[in-house]
Amino acid sequence: MSTIDTLSVVGVGMLGGSLALAARRRGVAARVVGTDPSPAALRRAPGVLDEARPDLASAVAGADVVVFCAPVDCIAALAVAAGPFCRPGALLTDVGSTKAAIVREVRGRLPAGVSFVGSHPLAGSEKHGAEHARGDLFEGRLVLVTPDPGADGAVLARLSDFWRALGARVEVLGPEEHDRALALTSHLPHLLASALAGALPPEWAGLTGTGFRDTTRLASGSPAVWGPIFRANRAAVLEALDRLEGHLARFRAALAGGDDALLEALLGQGKQSRDGLAQR
Amino acid sequence: MSTIDTLSVVGVGMLGGSLALAARRRGVAARVVGTDPSPAALRRAPGVLDEARPDLASAVAGADVVVFCAPVDCIAALAVAAGPFCRPGALLTDVGSTKAAIVREVRGRLPAGVSFVGSHPLAGSEKHGAEHARGDLFEGRLVLVTPDPGADGAVLARLSDFWRALGARVEVLGPEEHDRALALTSHLPHLLASALAGALPPEWAGLTGTGFRDTTRLASGSPAVWGPIFRANRAAVLEALDRLEGHLARFRAALAGGDDALLEALLGQGKQSRDGLAQR
Repeated sequence: MSTIDTLSVVGVGMLGGSLALAARRRGVAARVVGTDPSPAALRRAPGVLDEARPDLASAVAGADVVVFCAPVDCIAALAVAAGPFCRPGALLTDVGSTKAAIVREVRGRLPAGVSFVGSHPLAGSEKHGAEHARGDLFEGRLVLVTPDPGADGAVLARLSDFWRALGARVEVLGPEEHDRALALTSHLPHLLASALAGALPPEWAGLTGTGFRDTTRLASGSPAVWGPIFRANRAAVLEALDRLEGHLARFRAALAGGDDALLEALLGQGKQSRDGLAQR
Repeated sequence: MSTIDTLSVVGVGMLGGSLALAARRRGVAARVVGTDPSPAALRRAPGVLDEARPDLASAVAGADVVVFCAPVDCIAALAVAAGPFCRPGALLTDVGSTKAAIVREVRGRLPAGVSFVGSHPLAGSEKHGAEHARGDLFEGRLVLVTPDPGADGAVLARLSDFWRALGARVEVLGPEEHDRALALTSHLPHLLASALAGALPPEWAGLTGTGFRDTTRLASGSPAVWGPIFRANRAAVLEALDRLEGHLARFRAALAGGDDALLEALLGQGKQSRDGLAQR
């Protein structure tokens, strides 16, 4: 893509800080400005931004691209609030883990000439704060771009080019399809990790190995980030949980009934599915 | 510990091969012999053993310590078969992931002067075969040693010294307590990883990120290894699954009922438990 002049990052935590670092290091934007409701967050991010702004209006004014890196329940309100201060032609996007509610709440509420198309980089971490920002966070990672059915093709192309310039791969899918898929591929693993960690009696904590630790790693994510994600995608997460519990019921039947052939078949199915991911 | 003269490894896969490498590199044994029912397994392990033997009897004759590194449903039978060929004073142990059934099946079936005490190193990998053997596999890892209530203290001390000489930490607990704890800290995570991987629709495989991959890593383990582990620890695994499903039911209630306070409390509980492990 041709380099953009000004990138604005709203919310300078781990993801927003990484975005700012990546854009500066790769020359994707001539200038990266940003803001955060927490002055402490901005102070933790020295060297991440070219300019820290104290308020939303001045942070987005003049930006070619604005990326909202906030909890999913705040993104739509921030985008709608920012709209009137954006210049015509500005492209707004976000990094939220759910998409349908955000896209629905922003739809029709931006000034003419200002566009919003949702994004979701599959590049997270259980760490928080701009002090954990990494300029290579998006390299080789997948970014899902989720336009409304009637979205402007040129806007979509600009957004895809923006993410590719940061080193990411891009796939396009609808907001509702995104939320159904991610309920199973991202939100359900988080729920399982959290339930498993929560089920550990403290007296057995010393008897955990790398297997338990890998399986529960996601549980260290912030409840303040993940609570809103689960709430925004409630129905799809419940559907994914139903699906998982169907598989757990088959394991239970195999164990309780001494059905060794079924047990090995279930283990084999899980292995085949997981081994397939390793090759991607 | 004082160096032993001969260590015998029965089953030269990833774990057995790592044990042989570690014992040689750290000078724990003057000589490491081994055998495997599969000639191919032995051929994959050049340089791992000092001597490869074609049969169990010659592999254990003259050994001071014999370690059975076989699937859990084969260990007791191998130990009982090896007993008559062992020299008086020989100490037999294993690396199996379940302990109660093995200890029960070996009890009273060895010649006088030959001892068996179970071990379980919490040092696995989803990789198989001696070509993945690592001489540092046990360094800093926990080995659970599971004597019968009436076990000889001197034998227990020899076994603990053996594992410590390989770089491991040692904890002692009873075979039944081991199996109840490991059902939750090791076997249940494997079951969950397998069920989650198995629940992934192939068309969404491309929408998985590092979170899904970490949570399901264990699913790549061999069904030939894990089937026998689940079968040997059926009741305790079902009990651990009950416990987990109690936690899943609370997540379901929080989501379905819109109980945001409960949802955040559950996520907070999982985070606190998982963060506690990171500090160990």
